[in-house]
Amino acid sequence: MKIPAFVNVLLATALVVLSIKITFGDSAETDSHSGGRGVSDGITSATSRVSSASAYDMILSRTSIREYADRAVGSETVDSLLKAGMAAPTAGNRQPWKFIVVDDSSLIASIGSAAKAWAPVGRAPIAIIVCGDKSAAFDGALNEYWIQDCSAVSENILLSAHAMGLGAVWCGCYPQKDREEFIVNLFGLPDNIVPLNVIAIGYPKESHRPKDKYRQENIHYNVW
Amino acid sequence: MKIPAFVNVLLATALVVLSIKITFGDSAETDSHSGGRGVSDGITSATSRVSSASAYDMILSRTSIREYADRAVGSETVDSLLKAGMAAPTAGNRQPWKFIVVDDSSLIASIGSAAKAWAPVGRAPIAIIVCGDKSAAFDGALNEYWIQDCSAVSENILLSAHAMGLGAVWCGCYPQKDREEFIVNLFGLPDNIVPLNVIAIGYPKESHRPKDKYRQENIHYNVW
Repeated sequence: MKIPAFVNVLLATALVVLSIKITFGDSAETDSHSGGRGVSDGITSATSRVSSASAYDMILSRTSIREYADRAVGSETVDSLLKAGMAAPTAGNRQPWKFIVVDDSSLIASIGSAAKAWAPVGRAPIAIIVCGDKSAAFDGALNEYWIQDCSAVSENILLSAHAMGLGAVWCGCYPQKDREEFIVNLFGLPDNIVPLNVIAIGYPKESHRPKDKYRQENIHYNVW
Repeated sequence: MKIPAFVNVLLATALVVLSIKITFGDSAETDSHSGGRGVSDGITSATSRVSSASAYDMILSRTSIREYADRAVGSETVDSLLKAGMAAPTAGNRQPWKFIVVDDSSLIASIGSAAKAWAPVGRAPIAIIVCGDKSAAFDGALNEYWIQDCSAVSENILLSAHAMGLGAVWCGCYPQKDREEFIVNLFGLPDNIVPLNVIAIGYPKESHRPKDKYRQENIHYNVW
């Protein structure tokens, strides 16, 4: 079998190019999780393990995470979560939302012990309180759309946390008056601000399989 | 330059293996959008153009789509949307949601002309009405959590539509009494069922850039 040397060189070059593409292609994709901005607090390493999963699969594999590893969540990661939150749809483009990022340990402990269902907050390195801004929302009967807008915001935060390798749980506040009053008093919130929930966020202590909540009997086609 | 023939054969083999991996690796990833089930109605071709985008980017790039191409949305695609919807978090695992899938052209036309903001429904091949089930929700003051649960469901449907190459828009219904009554009467819904919205869904007629709604001034850190 006689083959010219230049064929060897050509093959070797192609092999090297392909190898580089395969090896570094994944890293390039991982970087896109940061929304194109530079990140320096571990977001890249956090996302690398989920970079190959599709957006659709990410929705199905999200589940509530209530136990967290002893690892800080960097400020740029928090900003990415809030950016995803504010990308939610909003009735009439009112954007009736405000956020309180909590990483002060005494505040975290205080919130975590205020309600049994809020215990995960006490174990989390950070929490985001998603608030409705009733002044920014529609007037009158349509004012209540802030609840839907802020719920879509919250789901975006949960999904983006999952996409970045974090775990989170939506701890309900509104419409439970005692919980609302606790948060309002703790932060001295003005009358127009209503805390919808407290989202506890951290790196998961362990992985969890999501519940399968698909029920064919929930679906009607053209007729009830 | 003298190189043994077996080195040539080795290089050529490696090159072929790498080429196959690169060429078919993307298709394998695209298939995962279907949630692992076989799909035959175009979901694979629909998702192929977005398969390389990360889950995080998908959240940021979603926007309301109100004009649709003349292309049907298959029943398995609709089922994938509903599966994503029912993967939403739900207070106390109550799952207080029901769905009406509408593709009957007279119903579509009727809903599309019932409110000015619902015009996109009249142009869409299908719509999903996300309903709260107040009987399945908590009793008393906590009953209202169905709104938050169904809003998270709706956001999952919007995001999964986007992930599968579809476009969608959330057309509000609750808490607008006239709109609620229209849907209740059209389908003869029982008292415990409240239509939260009508989501118009189809393949996008054109691509749209999402609004940038990120506002630094919406964020408070530890203190209001």
